[in-house]
Amino acid sequence: MSGRTTDKKQTKLDLAARFRQTRQRTLTLCKPLTPEDMMVQSCAEASPAKWHLAHTAWFFESFVLREFLPGYQLFNAEFPWLFNSYYRSFAAFPEKRLRASFSRPGLDDVLRFRAHVNEAVERMLGDDVSSEALARIELGVHHEEQHQELLLTDILNAFFANPLRPLYQAMEPTHALSTRTANPLHFVHFPGGLQEAGHAGAGFCFDNERPRHKVWLEPFALADRLVTNGEFAAFIADGGYRRPELWLNAGWDATQQNGWCAPLYWTEEDGAGAGGRWSLFTLRGAMPLERVAAVPVCHVSYFEADAYARWAGRRLATEYEWEAAAAGQTVAGNLLDAGRLMPAPASAGEPGRNQGLAQQWGDCWEWTSSAYLGYPGFQPLSGSLGEYNGKFMSGQMVLRGGSCVTPAAHIRASYRNFFPPETRWQSSGIRLAAL
Amino acid sequence: MSGRTTDKKQTKLDLAARFRQTRQRTLTLCKPLTPEDMMVQSCAEASPAKWHLAHTAWFFESFVLREFLPGYQLFNAEFPWLFNSYYRSFAAFPEKRLRASFSRPGLDDVLRFRAHVNEAVERMLGDDVSSEALARIELGVHHEEQHQELLLTDILNAFFANPLRPLYQAMEPTHALSTRTANPLHFVHFPGGLQEAGHAGAGFCFDNERPRHKVWLEPFALADRLVTNGEFAAFIADGGYRRPELWLNAGWDATQQNGWCAPLYWTEEDGAGAGGRWSLFTLRGAMPLERVAAVPVCHVSYFEADAYARWAGRRLATEYEWEAAAAGQTVAGNLLDAGRLMPAPASAGEPGRNQGLAQQWGDCWEWTSSAYLGYPGFQPLSGSLGEYNGKFMSGQMVLRGGSCVTPAAHIRASYRNFFPPETRWQSSGIRLAAL
Amino acid sequence: MSGRTTDKKQTKLDLAARFRQTRQRTLTLCKPLTPEDMMVQSCAEASPAKWHLAHTAWFFESFVLREFLPGYQLFNAEFPWLFNSYYRSFAAFPEKRLRASFSRPGLDDVLRFRAHVNEAVERMLGDDVSSEALARIELGVHHEEQHQELLLTDILNAFFANPLRPLYQAMEPTHALSTRTANPLHFVHFPGGLQEAGHAGAGFCFDNERPRHKVWLEPFALADRLVTNGEFAAFIADGGYRRPELWLNAGWDATQQNGWCAPLYWTEEDGAGAGGRWSLFTLRGAMPLERVAAVPVCHVSYFEADAYARWAGRRLATEYEWEAAAAGQTVAGNLLDAGRLMPAPASAGEPGRNQGLAQQWGDCWEWTSSAYLGYPGFQPLSGSLGEYNGKFMSGQMVLRGGSCVTPAAHIRASYRNFFPPETRWQSSGIRLAAL
Amino acid sequence: MSGRTTDKKQTKLDLAARFRQTRQRTLTLCKPLTPEDMMVQSCAEASPAKWHLAHTAWFFESFVLREFLPGYQLFNAEFPWLFNSYYRSFAAFPEKRLRASFSRPGLDDVLRFRAHVNEAVERMLGDDVSSEALARIELGVHHEEQHQELLLTDILNAFFANPLRPLYQAMEPTHALSTRTANPLHFVHFPGGLQEAGHAGAGFCFDNERPRHKVWLEPFALADRLVTNGEFAAFIADGGYRRPELWLNAGWDATQQNGWCAPLYWTEEDGAGAGGRWSLFTLRGAMPLERVAAVPVCHVSYFEADAYARWAGRRLATEYEWEAAAAGQTVAGNLLDAGRLMPAPASAGEPGRNQGLAQQWGDCWEWTSSAYLGYPGFQPLSGSLGEYNGKFMSGQMVLRGGSCVTPAAHIRASYRNFFPPETRWQSSGIRLAAL
Repeated sequence: MSGRTTDKKQTKLDLAARFRQTRQRTLTLCKPLTPEDMMVQSCAEASPAKWHLAHTAWFFESFVLREFLPGYQLFNAEFPWLFNSYYRSFAAFPEKRLRASFSRPGLDDVLRFRAHVNEAVERMLGDDVSSEALARIELGVHHEEQHQELLLTDILNAFFANPLRPLYQAMEPTHALSTRTANPLHFVHFPGGLQEAGHAGAGFCFDNERPRHKVWLEPFALADRLVTNGEFAAFIADGGYRRPELWLNAGWDATQQNGWCAPLYWTEEDGAGAGGRWSLFTLRGAMPLERVAAVPVCHVSYFEADAYARWAGRRLATEYEWEAAAAGQTVAGNLLDAGRLMPAPASAGEPGRNQGLAQQWGDCWEWTSSAYLGYPGFQPLSGSLGEYNGKFMSGQMVLRGGSCVTPAAHIRASYRNFFPPETRWQSSGIRLAAL
Repeated sequence: MSGRTTDKKQTKLDLAARFRQTRQRTLTLCKPLTPEDMMVQSCAEASPAKWHLAHTAWFFESFVLREFLPGYQLFNAEFPWLFNSYYRSFAAFPEKRLRASFSRPGLDDVLRFRAHVNEAVERMLGDDVSSEALARIELGVHHEEQHQELLLTDILNAFFANPLRPLYQAMEPTHALSTRTANPLHFVHFPGGLQEAGHAGAGFCFDNERPRHKVWLEPFALADRLVTNGEFAAFIADGGYRRPELWLNAGWDATQQNGWCAPLYWTEEDGAGAGGRWSLFTLRGAMPLERVAAVPVCHVSYFEADAYARWAGRRLATEYEWEAAAAGQTVAGNLLDAGRLMPAPASAGEPGRNQGLAQQWGDCWEWTSSAYLGYPGFQPLSGSLGEYNGKFMSGQMVLRGGSCVTPAAHIRASYRNFFPPETRWQSSGIRLAAL
Repeated sequence: MSGRTTDKKQTKLDLAARFRQTRQRTLTLCKPLTPEDMMVQSCAEASPAKWHLAHTAWFFESFVLREFLPGYQLFNAEFPWLFNSYYRSFAAFPEKRLRASFSRPGLDDVLRFRAHVNEAVERMLGDDVSSEALARIELGVHHEEQHQELLLTDILNAFFANPLRPLYQAMEPTHALSTRTANPLHFVHFPGGLQEAGHAGAGFCFDNERPRHKVWLEPFALADRLVTNGEFAAFIADGGYRRPELWLNAGWDATQQNGWCAPLYWTEEDGAGAGGRWSLFTLRGAMPLERVAAVPVCHVSYFEADAYARWAGRRLATEYEWEAAAAGQTVAGNLLDAGRLMPAPASAGEPGRNQGLAQQWGDCWEWTSSAYLGYPGFQPLSGSLGEYNGKFMSGQMVLRGGSCVTPAAHIRASYRNFFPPETRWQSSGIRLAAL
Repeated sequence: MSGRTTDKKQTKLDLAARFRQTRQRTLTLCKPLTPEDMMVQSCAEASPAKWHLAHTAWFFESFVLREFLPGYQLFNAEFPWLFNSYYRSFAAFPEKRLRASFSRPGLDDVLRFRAHVNEAVERMLGDDVSSEALARIELGVHHEEQHQELLLTDILNAFFANPLRPLYQAMEPTHALSTRTANPLHFVHFPGGLQEAGHAGAGFCFDNERPRHKVWLEPFALADRLVTNGEFAAFIADGGYRRPELWLNAGWDATQQNGWCAPLYWTEEDGAGAGGRWSLFTLRGAMPLERVAAVPVCHVSYFEADAYARWAGRRLATEYEWEAAAAGQTVAGNLLDAGRLMPAPASAGEPGRNQGLAQQWGDCWEWTSSAYLGYPGFQPLSGSLGEYNGKFMSGQMVLRGGSCVTPAAHIRASYRNFFPPETRWQSSGIRLAAL
């Protein structure tokens, strides 16, 4: 047996394990949820948890099994378009808001659909399978990881929309929040110069991380930790939401039209504007601001991140600066695998790890000042999968670094997340840059 | 024991029986539904079935138990505002659209809430109880009957929104649809004159049916049956939706803005405008137009009813004309108790019953040309219950006669239903008038 | 020469005089305006003054000259559709909002168009002309009178939209406002009974005032004058705009969505809600509330009129009650011909005139509690003119009595004005009713 | 007299001449307009021509005269906020849509305001004046040039909104359009490498063109001329507006929501979708497509430019690629000074001029694929003028090269124009890029 064959066999074994774990984890995340919880779609960006369960199975069925498993039988002839999200060249699809009406198929059916797909993928993995098929399965795993994060993001929104504010999971003692103030913020300097950015090497990446290309960077500095809730509260107290000179024009309009006066999920106990006590809602329940003052501020829009930076006399980093600082660093931090499900204060021991930057991975996605556009020479995947990332390259901003609900295996230095600048339902926070 | 006491005792026994049956029937209507089905809120007018279950219990708790049962313990301290619909003077209430996020309390909790309320009301009814309290219980029963109709109305919408178009209940053999054409339409003449309208006598009525008052009517005529699907299809085929001269100005605008080209729940098999075959969705599933051509057209707005009447060279009746024709007639017809759950063709034997008018009760609510306004001297109920009907006396039209999903015990000659003229999700149909 | 011929001749002479005066007055009303003023269209309900000038000529051209003057030459081949307002069966027409883009034709051209039309109508009137043609000319005169009122109504809105708040016309000394408080409000009682309503006799009326028909009225009472600015300010000061129990549901929603906290054209000098001094903008410029406290409140919606009445423990009259009180009374009061252009305090001498009711004619249109619907047996005019009134019989409320900008010759006891209940740009006020 | 003094004197003389010419040209552009034309504001992006006249005077008054001319008397105490566009830190300002209500001040007043400002600026220029003041006057001149372009852009929209489609100016014989087909498209190659971008040297530039900075470019190619109307018609005929795979997601949504099926100002003579003949509306009137087939397509959004490029198998250039190709080239072409007021076909003689690229200056602004963001180290001007460009750095795309209505003196290689991607009312066209 050649080494090459052995390698491929090992790759298959690794991928099979990754597939199983990922598929299983999606279910584990649903453990605290009732079938009724899994019906809720509480904002335009969100989908019901049950839909996430079904759509991630749909992805494997549509792009793996139907293309690469001869004789594969559809679980249900309606599902190919019912659970299509936005792939126009693949099939029609229901309006997004209708997902809230999918009481049928019931959760049991969806779980059977998942099992049907799992069994078929396992069958493929136990057999002779092309590299292209393996690559598609790997893509499906990464796709499912994205939806794991979305599922938790959407459940937080759903539970916040419910006036009873249900609890997803009680805080565990090991996650107890330190009540100390955050360390003073320091800036770590980077020399810049002619760099390379974009995915390098053989591992998995999305099409939007390619091609790797040269970019010139001026010297820059990044804050050694994220902005905290306490710091952001000072911005609010200083009239941050009432001073147009701090805001981009579109950001100011967003504050006025939406009545923003704090990050999403912050509520003022004694009524808006009354100078009351802030309470922050999380997957671990509601918490008074004082308790989480050292925790990174989360669920802010790009506009709020930008305004905060201007107020602080700083700026946001470009995605290239962020990537230059992250390149070569080991991925580790408060990611989904840590099980905390909310940002954590920068730990004393951590800052030394990555050129002095704490919280580079996990905690909060970091808004960058870069618009989400194709890299020079960008080529989307061929066929319907070309719609995965490329068609969204307009009107969105890049975020980097993953969050407390991002699977650790999912994130990397070249990973580009992207959302419109008014987005707040994501776990998005702020790292300041300077120079 | 005086006759008076005996009477009151019997009244209590009757009411207790009515209460039990009504409360039970609400649950029976939910039998075909899963907990997930009961989460769906598919249009702005609708509420989730679970919410109807909870809100009808809330009504008894809020307006009966808390006021009249000393020592009553709330089931849950949050429910008084959580399940308040629109009684501003009673408590705050969540935005209507948020009802779709009420995954908690779960269905089990809501059923426990209902049992808790039932037990307390039964306790009251087994004890010495004031006439006022009895009147409130009776009001609660009528309130729950309204929500029984709404629950079915909303589920039809929910199942239509679901691209899989689930079936609420299969058609039973005894309900088989006759495929014959409807009888030719005849008009029954009424002399008019100085009449009395509004509720008379001692039985229950809503505040908006009072006071009984004099009204002058010119001679008029009413069609002896409702307009059928087949007749409405002829209106469509004659360009009814494309001819502005047939429409009220606001109605024409509604067709243009909403893209109406047929009643709600009609779909054209081979694409809109393609001249394909119409299919009508009902609680009994989808049916081809030919099969239901003799069945009354349902789920049309006031604007469509008005345009149809103009096309037919006729008009709609006023609510006074309708009531004059119905006064003194026995309530009987295709109502909820008949269990058909969709309109039925006018039966051969029926027309003789009520001055020659078939389908006066049940089948479809009949749009009248009367705006929903207070009768001369109208007084809303006192307190929060004054918000029940009175505050909606603006911008709505009166409908009369009940529908195939209206409980028979709920409807009467003086009953005034009301909806905005663009409403189509109700079981609303058309009876022509002349002279 | 027969009496009949003489009569017709006199009728023609009278109509010719009326035509000339009306056409001339429209121009007179424009005297204080620049060509630029006549371009402004400052809200969805309004039209530019120049458009009113052109459209009123268009009406004569379209419905008189083209039909009844053989050989009539169009002034401009584009005008028949360019200046069509809403007669769908007559011609296409531009979207209403585009009227603000009609810089061409220029005012000079429009004035030439008017002269061209005048000359042709005069030619008709100087010649042998059918009764039908005369009736159409008369209709055109009444149409133009409506637009005279609209022109002033729209200019007030335009000048209020202009941050400089230009003055239409300075107050004349003879119109000096009395600063005294209004007389205490008294109610005048009417017996009701079986009445007749709708236009009687041979004079002109619109199709919606017909047919005259019987109606039963209970005894009722009407306030002897309109509600004043001072009284309405007390409603505001008592939290009228913040108490949902005073409002129809749709009215409360309107206050919340539009941020209403006072009638249109009231501004608070020191900022909204600051308890500052109210200033009222009129065609005579801005005036402090104290100066006009005894003047009728104007530019309130039906919702505000209804809420005020509820607050005052009264109600609004029905249109039938209003008409019964007005029947047989001479039209006289603060109408356009008085030249005041804003409401006036009820005068001491006036109450005796009309069964004790002051301000029945002019000052403010009086919102009634009647929905605008067709009378029993209503028949719209034939042809395109059938669109004049009939197609608007949905979602609007009836107003009665004319205003300070209504031509005296235009109003009568049976006259029905109508607007949607949220309308505030009209000169609409409040008369209370009781019983 | 030192050379320095002489230099400054000459600078002042040059600036005075430039000031006079610019101020005069704004008036010249208004020659074909009536005062009524100058009132029209026909879309959300546009302003009335009279407002442009006043606002450009306001700019000199606010940022030059009030700061640098001691004793300057305001022309009108209301104008500082009335004609403020969007400088929040300078003064309040009216909602943009209200500009259509500014019938007062009348055009005469605005012209007097301009004369008042001119006289004061001339006085300054005739006296001893600081370099900073001179820089501000220069900024005011460039500001006015921008509004010259906007004025013509807005008038084209205003005349298109008018159903009569008035003519701004008849085509002159010297501008006769060649009817030949455009030359075949060729691509000119550029080597890329480490370049510098942003304004270099001492001349005027806006803050957003700074600082000059290094950027790495891969080799690239640019089309030697703009895409023509004829070529774009082929895209339409090939179903370009009906094929979602050609569009960015936001672009596809824009086509669906706005019903786009051709560039702005294209109308289909025989009705939309009827395969009729296209007519293009310009400042020179309407022209059949065949007559202008070789003329560059204009008034397309970024989304349409992007979709066309994808259809053609090409892409749009980045702003850096465009600037690298333009650097060092003489500004010359079909700019405002040429007086054509619409794009012109690429001329035979022209391509040799600029590395083989025709139409690099003028004709149409060229959409680039670069988001409008601050350059590394970007610093807005201090004070209120910092709002000039910086606060718009969100959600917009960069356009380069000027158009047929851009003053020649206004454009340069580093000039960055910017508009949201759905913008079509600008003179925006398409140059393809490759590699």
